[in-house]
Amino acid sequence: MLAMLGAGVVEVAAARTMADVLAASKPTDWRVLDPANTLYMDVPGGRVVIELAPQFAPRHADNLRTLVREGYFDGQEINRVQDNFVVQWGGGHAAKGRTLRTARETLPGEFTRPAKGLKFTVLPDPDTYAPQTGFVDGFPAARDSATGTAWAVHCYGMVGVGRDIAADSGGGTELYAVLGHAPRQLDRNATPAGRVVQGMELLAALPRGRGELGIYDKPELNVKITRVRVAADVSASERMVLQVLRTDTPTFEALIESRRNRRDEWYKVPAGRIDVCNVPLPARVISTGATDGAGG
Amino acid sequence: MLAMLGAGVVEVAAARTMADVLAASKPTDWRVLDPANTLYMDVPGGRVVIELAPQFAPRHADNLRTLVREGYFDGQEINRVQDNFVVQWGGGHAAKGRTLRTARETLPGEFTRPAKGLKFTVLPDPDTYAPQTGFVDGFPAARDSATGTAWAVHCYGMVGVGRDIAADSGGGTELYAVLGHAPRQLDRNATPAGRVVQGMELLAALPRGRGELGIYDKPELNVKITRVRVAADVSASERMVLQVLRTDTPTFEALIESRRNRRDEWYKVPAGRIDVCNVPLPARVISTGATDGAGG
Repeated sequence: MLAMLGAGVVEVAAARTMADVLAASKPTDWRVLDPANTLYMDVPGGRVVIELAPQFAPRHADNLRTLVREGYFDGQEINRVQDNFVVQWGGGHAAKGRTLRTARETLPGEFTRPAKGLKFTVLPDPDTYAPQTGFVDGFPAARDSATGTAWAVHCYGMVGVGRDIAADSGGGTELYAVLGHAPRQLDRNATPAGRVVQGMELLAALPRGRGELGIYDKPELNVKITRVRVAADVSASERMVLQVLRTDTPTFEALIESRRNRRDEWYKVPAGRIDVCNVPLPARVISTGATDGAGG
Repeated sequence: MLAMLGAGVVEVAAARTMADVLAASKPTDWRVLDPANTLYMDVPGGRVVIELAPQFAPRHADNLRTLVREGYFDGQEINRVQDNFVVQWGGGHAAKGRTLRTARETLPGEFTRPAKGLKFTVLPDPDTYAPQTGFVDGFPAARDSATGTAWAVHCYGMVGVGRDIAADSGGGTELYAVLGHAPRQLDRNATPAGRVVQGMELLAALPRGRGELGIYDKPELNVKITRVRVAADVSASERMVLQVLRTDTPTFEALIESRRNRRDEWYKVPAGRIDVCNVPLPARVISTGATDGAGG
């Protein structure tokens, strides 16, 4: 249904807001997070839910599951909160004296992967950093036909693997989450561990560290992580049922369009384009699971 | 000094990091904030310093000075903190019962302005949203030769004028600051009030509101603003002397290049490009001013 307006302007009469798109979504537009790829990280303010990214970093996803199952992160600390950049936990001095069991200390970096084999929902808009951006299984992503590679993009809430100078010096014992404007210079330089699907506001509202790189300058300021678990290891009754909008559907394409050109009356000039990191990735809680005393 | 490496790769031997660029900067590369265009907003955690943007919104800058001088913001509240979007204060219910004196309640929106007359430092990299981006007097900006207009860009720390549906329904009694990934859809839809030059981390670390749009669902959660002053109205001995790197110099061009292609050993793949909102705008405190008991 197109209506011709003056001066050749074409407007879609049935233009929808994101709320319209979500209200009209079908159950099949949503996916339940796979418990084997879901981490619950309990911090003083509540629960942070992270979806792992085995599509992009299979060895790190495996190692993270092992680290979690061996209790590596229980009692670890958030020791860095750098404004407009990242919040970081584990590793470093907090890991001193902690020994790994079967988990690996380090792994070769999984910064990119072959683009082939990924179901890639293309975003048609130009991007400053990558030849093409889009979405893969709910993750913001990019790809380059010249190299045949694809990678996860460092949008807000992206979780990455901390490392030292060497590309193979990270393994998952230290992680960070993006809490500011997408630091896209990290793309292809860090291994994606996953994405915060719920609870990012708990990390983003932490006090910023006053030390160099946002490190807390007094150890007593560090924020203790109560425990981290793989959702699959939590009893079904206790498990949170969280659905995430699929990114390979006409509904998601409609959502992108609803945000590319906002039809809310408030907007006077629709942007006409959208940055991959400005596309919302809706999640909804179907069941919070039985209270288990964790997360405070 | 260029060195030829194997396979035709040319590397700039003298490539510098941002720290190198800043260390080599001259006093003339910096400007002292104009006290007439500087606001001190004292909140429980300390002081937020805002530089007004009269280049982009002269009537609003005037009105903001008047509102501040008439005490409009003293005791007002931050009542909205929406994760990955904005923190907002003033106006709304917090303004109830408050009468304006000579300040205007509303003004016509100053969303864009003629590009002509602005000294525009061009960023050569492509942008998703605007035909061209760059910097004007320390503000991230964009312009469009087709319309001959320019506007301030909604990067992290940008302060904008809240309004209702009508384009002329804002005036400065309600303000917001961007605390997440640049919501570029606001560009050309909101009047720029200024930019947080220092203290953004105090706003960014506030607890997120649990109500719709991140509004605090209980009024007692609102964060009281102790007072707001124009720096020019503060005695010279009490005034903070803050310098900001100029954006119209070869030093700033070198800074952009140092961030476009990071030479730190940590980076394995330089991005080769940079988003206007990822270019740092360094500030340095020359003198904090005499303690005046404000800001906690």
